[in-house]
Amino acid sequence: MTAVDAATLYYQVQQFYAQQMQLLDDGKVAEWAATFTEDGVFAANAHPEPVTGRTAIEAAARKATEEYAAKQIQRRHWLGMVSVESGDQDAVVARCYALVIETPRGGQAAIRVSTVCADKLVRDGDNWLVQDRQVTRDDLA
Amino acid sequence: MTAVDAATLYYQVQQFYAQQMQLLDDGKVAEWAATFTEDGVFAANAHPEPVTGRTAIEAAARKATEEYAAKQIQRRHWLGMVSVESGDQDAVVARCYALVIETPRGGQAAIRVSTVCADKLVRDGDNWLVQDRQVTRDDLA
Amino acid sequence: MTAVDAATLYYQVQQFYAQQMQLLDDGKVAEWAATFTEDGVFAANAHPEPVTGRTAIEAAARKATEEYAAKQIQRRHWLGMVSVESGDQDAVVARCYALVIETPRGGQAAIRVSTVCADKLVRDGDNWLVQDRQVTRDDLA
Repeated sequence: MTAVDAATLYYQVQQFYAQQMQLLDDGKVAEWAATFTEDGVFAANAHPEPVTGRTAIEAAARKATEEYAAKQIQRRHWLGMVSVESGDQDAVVARCYALVIETPRGGQAAIRVSTVCADKLVRDGDNWLVQDRQVTRDDLA
Repeated sequence: MTAVDAATLYYQVQQFYAQQMQLLDDGKVAEWAATFTEDGVFAANAHPEPVTGRTAIEAAARKATEEYAAKQIQRRHWLGMVSVESGDQDAVVARCYALVIETPRGGQAAIRVSTVCADKLVRDGDNWLVQDRQVTRDDLA
Repeated sequence: MTAVDAATLYYQVQQFYAQQMQLLDDGKVAEWAATFTEDGVFAANAHPEPVTGRTAIEAAARKATEEYAAKQIQRRHWLGMVSVESGDQDAVVARCYALVIETPRGGQAAIRVSTVCADKLVRDGDNWLVQDRQVTRDDLA
């Protein structure tokens, strides 16, 4: 892979992450779930077992989103320090840091958790999809 | 737009945001105001009405900068999760998250506010300028 | 430098920072120290004098890493708002913001310090190395 190809791929991962997380934080749960493959896996050390499949991922996200809405808390998922570990035009392994920042209505913004996010992404036409995501919370690690 | 062109544009927006915010946080108010078009608009849900025009934007920023200096608080504007929604070589619509992080002299750094920033950028030679910026504070949203 | 070259360079700096900081936060001290030149300088306004040379930089980082491990605190270095001030294929001057975010085991993540990081990077084959790093803590500035 040339340096320009690597730079282009890196940009695509950054853009994908930004759009994906803005969907979730805006409460667009179905659109967010559609950024996972049909057989996508979402695993987290905060959960007893992985959530498998887009339908289950959407259901879990919808439940969390409704709970935050009921509490009038705005979440923001910040992904940063993105490292593309390997990849080509069809698949990428990336590792980044992820913060969840919460703001209660009328209240003070604060970091909720600091995590590491390890992804396997696959290309789907002009877009990328998450095939496997492993989120490790620093407080539980 | 080719993938390489899109990557190049994304980089330019990131570099622009970094330079723009470092100017403001360094107290270079005139230089910061010069990153808006002459007729630029800065609107925020924290303000009763938009600030319009580079001169007015500079005056508002100077007042805030002097207040922070008097309180010996260092601000840092962090923009992240940048999504270039549309754009070409001449104009860009971008949406990102923005944190204001404050550190009092001798004190503890903390998040002041979490916001969303929606921008219309226009090219000016080799640089970019903000034509319209809409900042939405999460605590007021 | 063409726009594409500048974008490629910017990507390389971002990728370098992500990998470098993940090494440190993962406790891979020798690998992290190897991202400095043999005669590299690490200066900080929190330290009485600069640490000079890869061996000394590694020793200082190992001591800090062991202290954090003993306290069961996970550090995360977030670099953002990266501005490539000047550069070519062989050397780069960059300035960015850096946060240290700490999470005690079983505890609450929080920002420890907000800093500015000014780097001189030099190319080493396919990689980059830090030749000079100046870290300025906002609380001490």
